[in-house]
Amino acid sequence: MSVPTAPGTAVTDLLGLVALGELLAFERMAADARLAPDLSRRAALGEMAAAEIVNYRRLADRLAALGVPPEEAMGPYVEPLQAYHDSTEPRDWAEAVTKAYVGDAITDDFIREIAGALDEPDRRLVLDVVHESRYAEFAAAEIRMAVEADPRVAGRLSMWGRRLVGEALSQAGRVAAADRGALTALIAQGDRTDVQALFRQMTGAHTARMAAVGLNN
Amino acid sequence: MSVPTAPGTAVTDLLGLVALGELLAFERMAADARLAPDLSRRAALGEMAAAEIVNYRRLADRLAALGVPPEEAMGPYVEPLQAYHDSTEPRDWAEAVTKAYVGDAITDDFIREIAGALDEPDRRLVLDVVHESRYAEFAAAEIRMAVEADPRVAGRLSMWGRRLVGEALSQAGRVAAADRGALTALIAQGDRTDVQALFRQMTGAHTARMAAVGLNN
Repeated sequence: MSVPTAPGTAVTDLLGLVALGELLAFERMAADARLAPDLSRRAALGEMAAAEIVNYRRLADRLAALGVPPEEAMGPYVEPLQAYHDSTEPRDWAEAVTKAYVGDAITDDFIREIAGALDEPDRRLVLDVVHESRYAEFAAAEIRMAVEADPRVAGRLSMWGRRLVGEALSQAGRVAAADRGALTALIAQGDRTDVQALFRQMTGAHTARMAAVGLNN
Repeated sequence: MSVPTAPGTAVTDLLGLVALGELLAFERMAADARLAPDLSRRAALGEMAAAEIVNYRRLADRLAALGVPPEEAMGPYVEPLQAYHDSTEPRDWAEAVTKAYVGDAITDDFIREIAGALDEPDRRLVLDVVHESRYAEFAAAEIRMAVEADPRVAGRLSMWGRRLVGEALSQAGRVAAADRGALTALIAQGDRTDVQALFRQMTGAHTARMAAVGLNN
């Protein structure tokens, strides 16, 4: 499946964005683990977090191999990604697992979409970063359990899910603004014609996932 | 190298203590990573943290295989170990890496000491949990760098190191009190005759490590 070679800057910009996403997701999940109702669940979220930083290392090593310091590639995205996490700090365990469930899946959709515009070995590397389904299953089971225990929770978590997507889209706009042009060009190389179309497709998939755990979008 | 078989409870108590130590060390290091002066160092502490939770999973799986829910084995130690971390929250990066340097090494000393009283496969498992030297080298290099940049930092970090050990010993006393007797019996099976002797030996090793990074005990 041959695709046109993306310009070098676009590839390293993209690897930088994904690497930073992994690093920050690691930190926030590790911090959110303290909200767990017991030690087993606390460890489970911690393990989800650890998987993110293992991916971070692979991406950082690839950036270094391409001659770009990881810090430099990640730099332009620190502010919007940090702002997303700062503005969506979970208040309890149900919000924490919902954030992991929603955030991981949106990241995965984004990665699958842009992987098509990458050449090997970056295409494979980026696809390897997609989350293992057992993590989504764990988070989904926790959300369903919280809703079963108290049906009113569904309303609150539905609202929380909308807020997560709203903040993510708002910061995605800032990511696009921070981008030096190459990243958006890379996205446009995929099946979708533009960034807006990608966002629409991603929010549609999100709605389906919310419904799967009994939440409304 | 045959050793007398430790009683079953002692082994699971010990695995529970070490597992909880790994889980909490993971969380605190992950949280402390935010104190890092740049993204590379932030990721480095995150990776040290991730190594801890990988070890946690191995210990928890072994406990489950022995028929003991990990939560149950860890339960008695939650309060003292959590108290240690809560009372030693680093205020900056130099304190964070000093805590990782001191805490990891003391944990390793403790593990090596008691491993001698365990049968296989627990002996091997517990020895595998000992930290990779590259992490200690990273932390030591960061401490030396902080001291070189500002020699007054040595005094502050020396005092911080003493506080870390003081809190650790204080909480170790509470661990021994929380113990159901089997763990202290296991420690006494080693070369040292009692828990106090083990503590003395461990603080001696600590003094040497502090000197190696230019700090006083």
